[in-house]
Order: sequence, then C-alpha cells, then structure tokens
Amino acid sequence: MPTILGQNQYGKAENRVVKIVRDGDTHHIKDLNVSVALSGDMDDVHYSGSNANVLPTDTTKNTVFAFAKEHGIESAEQFGIHLARHFVTSQEPIKTARIRIEEYAWERIATSDGNSRFIGAEEVQHSFVRKGQELRTAQITYDGRKWEIVSGLKDLTVLNSTNSEFWGYVKDRYTTLKEAYDRILATDVSARWRYNWTDDEQPMPNWEKSYRQARKHMLEAFAETYSLSLQQTLYQMGSRIIDSRSEIDEIRFSLPNNHHFLVDLEPFGLKNDNEVYFAADRPYGLIEATVLRDGVEPKIPVDMTNL
Amino acid sequence: MPTILGQNQYGKAENRVVKIVRDGDTHHIKDLNVSVALSGDMDDVHYSGSNANVLPTDTTKNTVFAFAKEHGIESAEQFGIHLARHFVTSQEPIKTARIRIEEYAWERIATSDGNSRFIGAEEVQHSFVRKGQELRTAQITYDGRKWEIVSGLKDLTVLNSTNSEFWGYVKDRYTTLKEAYDRILATDVSARWRYNWTDDEQPMPNWEKSYRQARKHMLEAFAETYSLSLQQTLYQMGSRIIDSRSEIDEIRFSLPNNHHFLVDLEPFGLKNDNEVYFAADRPYGLIEATVLRDGVEPKIPVDMTNL
Amino acid sequence: MPTILGQNQYGKAENRVVKIVRDGDTHHIKDLNVSVALSGDMDDVHYSGSNANVLPTDTTKNTVFAFAKEHGIESAEQFGIHLARHFVTSQEPIKTARIRIEEYAWERIATSDGNSRFIGAEEVQHSFVRKGQELRTAQITYDGRKWEIVSGLKDLTVLNSTNSEFWGYVKDRYTTLKEAYDRILATDVSARWRYNWTDDEQPMPNWEKSYRQARKHMLEAFAETYSLSLQQTLYQMGSRIIDSRSEIDEIRFSLPNNHHFLVDLEPFGLKNDNEVYFAADRPYGLIEATVLRDGVEPKIPVDMTNL
Amino acid sequence: MPTILGQNQYGKAENRVVKIVRDGDTHHIKDLNVSVALSGDMDDVHYSGSNANVLPTDTTKNTVFAFAKEHGIESAEQFGIHLARHFVTSQEPIKTARIRIEEYAWERIATSDGNSRFIGAEEVQHSFVRKGQELRTAQITYDGRKWEIVSGLKDLTVLNSTNSEFWGYVKDRYTTLKEAYDRILATDVSARWRYNWTDDEQPMPNWEKSYRQARKHMLEAFAETYSLSLQQTLYQMGSRIIDSRSEIDEIRFSLPNNHHFLVDLEPFGLKNDNEVYFAADRPYGLIEATVLRDGVEPKIPVDMTNL
Repeated sequence: MPTILGQNQYGKAENRVVKIVRDGDTHHIKDLNVSVALSGDMDDVHYSGSNANVLPTDTTKNTVFAFAKEHGIESAEQFGIHLARHFVTSQEPIKTARIRIEEYAWERIATSDGNSRFIGAEEVQHSFVRKGQELRTAQITYDGRKWEIVSGLKDLTVLNSTNSEFWGYVKDRYTTLKEAYDRILATDVSARWRYNWTDDEQPMPNWEKSYRQARKHMLEAFAETYSLSLQQTLYQMGSRIIDSRSEIDEIRFSLPNNHHFLVDLEPFGLKNDNEVYFAADRPYGLIEATVLRDGVEPKIPVDMTNL
Repeated sequence: MPTILGQNQYGKAENRVVKIVRDGDTHHIKDLNVSVALSGDMDDVHYSGSNANVLPTDTTKNTVFAFAKEHGIESAEQFGIHLARHFVTSQEPIKTARIRIEEYAWERIATSDGNSRFIGAEEVQHSFVRKGQELRTAQITYDGRKWEIVSGLKDLTVLNSTNSEFWGYVKDRYTTLKEAYDRILATDVSARWRYNWTDDEQPMPNWEKSYRQARKHMLEAFAETYSLSLQQTLYQMGSRIIDSRSEIDEIRFSLPNNHHFLVDLEPFGLKNDNEVYFAADRPYGLIEATVLRDGVEPKIPVDMTNL
Repeated sequence: MPTILGQNQYGKAENRVVKIVRDGDTHHIKDLNVSVALSGDMDDVHYSGSNANVLPTDTTKNTVFAFAKEHGIESAEQFGIHLARHFVTSQEPIKTARIRIEEYAWERIATSDGNSRFIGAEEVQHSFVRKGQELRTAQITYDGRKWEIVSGLKDLTVLNSTNSEFWGYVKDRYTTLKEAYDRILATDVSARWRYNWTDDEQPMPNWEKSYRQARKHMLEAFAETYSLSLQQTLYQMGSRIIDSRSEIDEIRFSLPNNHHFLVDLEPFGLKNDNEVYFAADRPYGLIEATVLRDGVEPKIPVDMTNL
Repeated sequence: MPTILGQNQYGKAENRVVKIVRDGDTHHIKDLNVSVALSGDMDDVHYSGSNANVLPTDTTKNTVFAFAKEHGIESAEQFGIHLARHFVTSQEPIKTARIRIEEYAWERIATSDGNSRFIGAEEVQHSFVRKGQELRTAQITYDGRKWEIVSGLKDLTVLNSTNSEFWGYVKDRYTTLKEAYDRILATDVSARWRYNWTDDEQPMPNWEKSYRQARKHMLEAFAETYSLSLQQTLYQMGSRIIDSRSEIDEIRFSLPNNHHFLVDLEPFGLKNDNEVYFAADRPYGLIEATVLRDGVEPKIPVDMTNL
C-alpha cells in the first residue's frame, strides 16, 4: 500500500454547555464551548470504515453534558481534566485526548432599589450580562501519563494613545514609510500560556487565580511599556508573566498591529496634532513570538495563537 | 419612459474615525464607525450618469475626518448633527442627510503601583481596553427643517437563570412543546429609541446621560421582571424607558430568544435539576415590537432593529 | 396607561430545512433557511404575559418541517405561500404572516468514468457541491386577502475591469478626489424585487424561471453598461429587469462600491498602467435606489436590501 | 536573564492585491490576499526595541504590490516563490520567509447578443462574477536552501444524500446514538497538500493544473465512496490524490461532519422516508487526518487545516 495514514483525531466540536449552580437565590453561571479530539488505534476506521474502535462523537457530546452534572465546572481547566482522563482511561483504543474550551464570561446585572417597582429588586441574583471583551481559552491534553495545559485568551483589544515610536528600521528599495515618534499602538491580544503542571502528583495550580493574574500582568505591561516596537511590547508582556507566575513556563502571542493612520487634514487647512486617526482593517502588521523560561523546551505550536 | 427612479441615497459607509483628546497626560478617546447617506436631486446621475449634482462619497469621507478636528466628538449624536446639517445646508441638491454611527466603548487599563517597574505607572492615563459588550448606535436624519434622532444599542447579551415561565399557549396539530415553569430566558438586546427632540429651538437632550439611563432601565427591567413570555419582558423594558425618560417617545426591540434547552440526563442515570443546559444557535425565537408613548406616531421602521 | 404597544411580530427564525427528493437513483435537493414572523391580536402577551393567543415559535418551527413533507418545496416562494396561508387561515388571532427564506444553491458533482474505481461512478446522482456565489432570498407576506412577494439575492460579487469613469462631480472645500477615466467598478449586488402577483385568482409567476431571468438581466446590464457612475449602472440593472419581466414591478438595490485603488508604484520606479490595485474593505461607497414601473406605488422598505 | 525569546516572526498580513492583465479587449484577473511572515536575527527588536534589523511590515506590503507589477501573478504559488526568495536573499538578517496566500476565483459574465442593447455586447471580456465556493490557499516557505510548498482549499461544501452508513461503533454508558443505515453525509472540505518540489534544481510542478486535478480527485472520491464513516471517506479522498498526483506527498484534511438530522414527523402523523432533514450548526463532529505517501516524513502541522 503506497499510501498511509498519519496523525489523526476526531470528536465532537463546539458543545455549548451552560451550568447553573443555585446557592439559594444566588445563582452562579459557567458558559463553555467544549471541543473534544481523540486519537489512538484508529487505522481500521480510515482504511475499511470499521467503527469497532470508534466511540461516536455523539457519545463524546453526551459525556460533556453528563460531566457538567457529575463533576460540576469548577474551572475550564479542571473540567477538561475530568473529560480527558475519562476518555483515555475508559476506552482502550483511545491513547490521547485533547479538550479545547472557550469560556464566555458573565457579570451580574446591578439593580437599584430606588428605580425599582419589583419588591426586593436590589437582591436580584439570577440576572447576568455577558462581559464581552476577551474569550478565555483552555486546552487540556492527556496521553495517560502526562498532562499539558495551555490556557489563554483572544480578542482582547487594547490601545495606547501615546508612548509608542517606530524608527531606525531597515530601508530598502520598497520602503516609503515615514518614521514615527508619537503614534497610536493598538492590538487584539491573542495569547496562550503553558503551565508546568504535568503530573497528578504535583499540586495543581489555582486556574482561576492564575488566569486573572496573567491577564492583569499582560494589560499592565502593555500600558506601562514605552514602546519602540510592537515586538518590544510583546516581549515585555510575556516576560512579566514568566517572571511573576512560577506556574507558567511559556507564552505565545499573536498581535496584529491595528493601524491607526493620522489623517492628513492639510488639504482642508487644518492641522492634525495627533488627534484624528483612521482605523484601518487590512492589511495589518502581525507580530508573533514565544517567550519562555530559560531552559524549558518550547511546546506551543506556531499557529495555535491564531486559532 | 416606462421605468422610473424611486427613493435613492448614497454616501460613504463605515468611516472608522478615532479621536484622541489630550488633557495633559490624561487622554480621552472616541471611536466611531460613521456612515453617510445623502438624498436629493439625483435623477440625472441615475438616468444619464451626469455627476453634476453629486458630491463624491470620497468627499463625505473627508468631511467626517475634518469635522472630528473642527467640531470634536462630544457624542455620536452631536457629531452626526454637525455632519447632517453641513451636507444639507452647504449643497443645494442635497435635501436630506442621514448619518448612522456605531460607537465602540473603551475603558482605562488600571495599573497598580506594586507590580510596576515603570515609574509612576499608577498614573498611566493613555491606555485603554475595549469594553466589548454592546455596540452603541445613533442615526441622525435632517431634511433642512426637522431632526429625527434614533439612538440605540445592539449585541447586549443578557440571561436570567430563573423567574421565567412559558405555558398556557395555543396548541395545534403541530405543537409538541412541553410547558415550562422554570426556564432560562436569554437574549441579545437590539434596541432603537427615538427622541422627541426635532427642532433646533428645543433644548437638546444630554445624549450621553440619556444613553446611560436608557441602558440601565432596560437592564433593570430585564432583571426584575418575572417573565411569562419574552414579549412581556420586552414590553416591560420598553415601558420603563418611556415612563422614565421624557425625552424618548418610542422604542423598538428585536429580541432573539436564545434557547437554552435542559439536557435529558436520564439515559445516564442522572437527574437534571435545572442545572445543565445546551445553548442552541439556530433556530431561535425572534420577538420584535415597538413600545411608544400614547398619542405619538410610530416612526422607527420594522426592520431597523435588525440592521 | 401612558405607554402603548405598536407594531409587533414573533416567530421562529432560521429554520434550516433540507429536502431530498429521490427520483430513483437521481436525487434532488432543496436547502432553505426559513424565518417565520406572525402578527395579530397579541396585546395580552405583551401587557400581561398571557399566552392564550400565542402559537409557540416551536410550533412554527415544526410546521416548517412538516410542510416540507406535506407540500414539498417546489420553490422558496411556493413553500412560503403554503406556510403563510396556513398560519393566517388556521389561527384566528393571527392576522398577518411574513415568511423570509434564504436558499442555498447546489450543483451536482461531476464524476468521470476513467478515473473511477467505483462501478458506475459516472452515474453518481446523489452527490452535490454548494454553488457559493449569491444567496437567493424570498419574502412572502399574507394578510388573509392579498399577497406580497419580494424575491431577491445578496452577496453576488461582480467586477468590471474597464468601461467605468467618474468625473464632473461637485467639488467643495473637502474634495480631494482625482477624476478617473478608466477605473475598476466592483460591487456585491444585493437586490430585492417585488412581483405584481397579489391575488390567488391571478396566474402565479414561474418563480424559478423568473429568478433565473432577473439574475441574468442584472448581470448582463452590469457587464454591458459603460458606466459614468455606479448610480447609472444600478439604474440600468433595474430598468432592464422592469422592461424585460412584466411580472416584476419594483426592484431595490444596495450596491457597495468595492473600491479598488490603483497603487502608486512610482516610488519604486515602476509605472502602474491600470494593472495593480489595492482592494479596500472600509470605508466603501454605498449606492441604494429603487427602480420601478411608472405608475406603481413603491413598497420595498429603504433598509430591506441591507438585511 | 531568566526569560528568553523563542520562535518569532513578523510581517504584513492580508494584503489584498488585484492584478488585471489586458490582452487587447480581453482582460484577465488575479485576486489574492497575501500575508508575509519573516524570521531571522530579531532578538534585539524584542529585547530592546532596536529596529536596526527590521524591514518594516509596510515595506513588505509595498513589495507585494510592486512584485505584482514586476513579476506578474502567474499563480499564487509562483508569486509567493518570488516574494519569499526576495526577502531571504535581499536582507541579511532575514533567514526564513513564509508567504500565505488566499485566492478568490472569478469567472466571466456571459452576455448574449439577443438581449443586448450595447453594440458587440456578446464580446464583453472585462466583466467578472466571483465564483464563490472554495477559497484556494498556498503557503510558500523558504529558508535560503529549501522550499516547502503547501497548497490547498477551504470552505468547499459537499453533500451526499445517500450511500453513507454509521454503525458497529463502541457503546459506553453515555452512548445513546441510534445506528444509521442511510444517512446524509456533508462536510466543508478544508485540505492542505504538500508538494515534493523543494529545490530550484527540480522541475517545478504546474501549480494551476495540479490544483485543478487535486480538487477534481477529492470531489470524485467524495462522490464515489460508499461511506461507512467520514474517516473512510477522508482517507479515500487523500489516497486518491496521493495515488494520482506524483508531485504531492502529503495531504491533511479537517472535515466537520455537518449533521443533517432526520426530523421526527410522527407526532404530526407523517412518515419521514429520508426526505426532510434539519441541518444543524453546533456541535458538529470534526474528523482530521493526514494521508501521506509511504516513506515520506509528515510535515503539515496538526492545526494548519483549521486556519
């Protein structure tokens, strides 16, 4: 047979599970989009169509919903760990499970006594508004021995209206760009960071706290860096996380340079003193890099931050 | 000529203008997506291609950017009023101008002294993160005599995890739905409200405050209504705005019913006590209605809330 | 009561129904996205939450799928007529039904004898590839007496690489645009046309043929018009349909001007002889107009072509 | 320094270049979306912000447009080869260039003599309509010595209305799926194939012909396979390409299982004899695999087909 099968995986993608926990009148919500990918002894189903080793994708969907009841959803990472362990340990042909999760954040709707005609309205504890902003992500991979947890976020749009320059670059035949000494720097942060927790024997990180802290460090580094290039800002964002969070060994960013061009108002007899910008869509610069703890092996794939 | 021209309009759509105002080290940002539509004596350009009455769409774009400098952007509504007045009063063939604006909201990135290596970082006042959540909208129409201002928002996703029922409905041959006495109610609010300010002689509403208050009333009414139908919730949201804001005469909603189906866990020997839901995409219920002050004439078109 | 209810409607949106008809081994496919909107005596459900007049949106969904079996899907228009008539005539509180349909087109996958290892492969008659290109639309409205049928298409992207000019326009203080004597003209056609069939007593148009002919005339008019403005091209597209199809009385277009800017290559010592263009996203010109048979009353709303 | 820089790359993404070639009155069009990613000696720009080794992303954009003039666009692959070679050979710090291209296909608008009022309209050779259907892709990577060319397509939606079964699978505690002996099989094909051309000394494949043939083989294999699992269909699609095209060594697919659920019409007293289906959005099965020539090393990354 001159043609063979290479890497392969399958499962149910984008299971939208919402879990409500009722603590008296106070409700809590977790809202996830869960994708399952399983690999293992799957040659036959590709070569002959025999499904003897195939747990249906429909079953992987059912498992997601059943586990939301059986194990609850403490965090996206913990939920993914339950799922991945189950698939690998309960089905002999399945050797590796990869769970990808997107989490939608919600906050409570504040209600005020004064404006309310509903008795006790200030105590409404079951009403939520979606936060918008970033989508939180988690990828949990298990091969029966080791865990790999890569968490992150995407679509977190940030902008500095000053403290950004760009000059001193290479000029070739095709260079027309003017140097800039005070420009807007804006990007949609997509970041994925890998934890050094790999073994059930290790103490598990506090996933929720770690996420909040990583996000905070990223935003602060973005705000506080006087930037000579988006690459420099990226490195500051990454190194601050590596320096501050010992549970994280590696982080990869994909940062589009959301160009804001100063509009030429001179034809209208007006001076544009860094006030009026045109926010462009395409093309955009795209800056991507991994920042990692010295001595560790990088494992986050090049394109994972663009998914 | 058996074929004639009907309603027509033209202009530059989706001009993405960002305005930075520098108050010392403290910067302020306005981020708009502005679309211009002009109508008037435009028969010739359609019948013969003569552009003698046509102000180019490129010029309408330039005007948006120039006006951001000349007039500033106090609010989307005020900015649209400047633009609409200009086009109608400066170009004889143009009889009506309609300006549509989407506004992206930003909030400041908080930086903390303790974690910062940048001197004075706690005082960073030029760094912003986009709020996400709803898109604010404004439509300003001017015919040289009267103004029509329709403001609104879209993509504001809300959810009540209880206090919603649905029963007592019509049953016909095709009805299979089970009655529900405790369900999730969730929607993406799209709303447009019309102000009764129509004349330069009237005192102008405070557009920013009015927006904040209308949004607040909507959210509170959503949270506080014990709902027997999404229609009832919609009406409560609308009537609370009409009752509370004398400057608003009419509001129209388009509310998808974002179905959250209780997952049947019995096949797995589990009981689903209103805990685990499947969030569905399509199909969805769609509830649309206008709520208005008694005695006023409705003017918001049926489909405008779906744009 | 100072606040009242205005226009309102409800129903299930985006029911994705696929119908396979098996004619021996030859299969036929219809693939629709059907949205139902019902209006009538619905005050109570808004004011008090009483659902006594409400046929659930879930039932309207079931009806769509049941009717695909009971009546088949001869055309989107005919299917919508069956549905609208049913809702209005079977439910006393429902006075008007509006059915909106998007249709996805498919074509057969051609298989060739020579390359095939599957016996009789050249006769495969159950394999389809989606056509892409435009989405066909239909809106069917019935109030128990009269029909209004508005068909159309959207996302049909077309481009002329020459025979387009733009000059002789108004110049004001904000005009910087250079006149163009040979430019690219490109747009994504969104069009909706209204039939003069309104009554069951009239002979019904051949919806499929009429769609094909309207599309053909639009494309030909786009290709054959030497254009001095996109408005002129729009009018030619519309008038050719009105002139050629007696069953159509009115057509409305929304045509973005998909700008293709000639790239300035002079800084690189190159001459751009109308060869290399930058295709821009935003902003874009937007040209909208109704073309109608002389003497008929226009009925297609201003924004319907933008939905 | 405890934190270091890992893999990094930068460039201008999504340069939308349209090239018109005029062969007398007959025009030809190429419409590409080109993204440039460069790597090399870029430590300084990350660590200190020094741009001394940085060719601006703006320059990479200019180069794309200039090369469309200087070299023309024979094919996406050939165009990418010109670009990648230029960046690596002209800038000492740049060690690797990766060019990603999406191509939009166009076809001519047919015009007919009879309906035309424009003299010679049947000969219009400058009018195009976008084909829709799949997006063609190409990725060209060059490190100064070896080439890697990965071509492909995405969003090619196909459907078989019969000749698909699914049974004989593993059943566990969470399995509820019923076996199916005649189901719809539908997917959006995303495929990327790697050529064994790596060296300027080798004869270059005919990229246009190879693309057409790979696409044809995929479609035929999809249509002709009597499928017991989507994995089996995937493998047939891949192996037919490897068997038929000696210039291709490896292909990876990402195939969502676009579920079409048979609607239960029994509550309405109707029998659904494989006629009426509900086309679901989420969740969906997702089947991914690499198929490769025996003996070659797989190189297409796991996630590349999902970009």
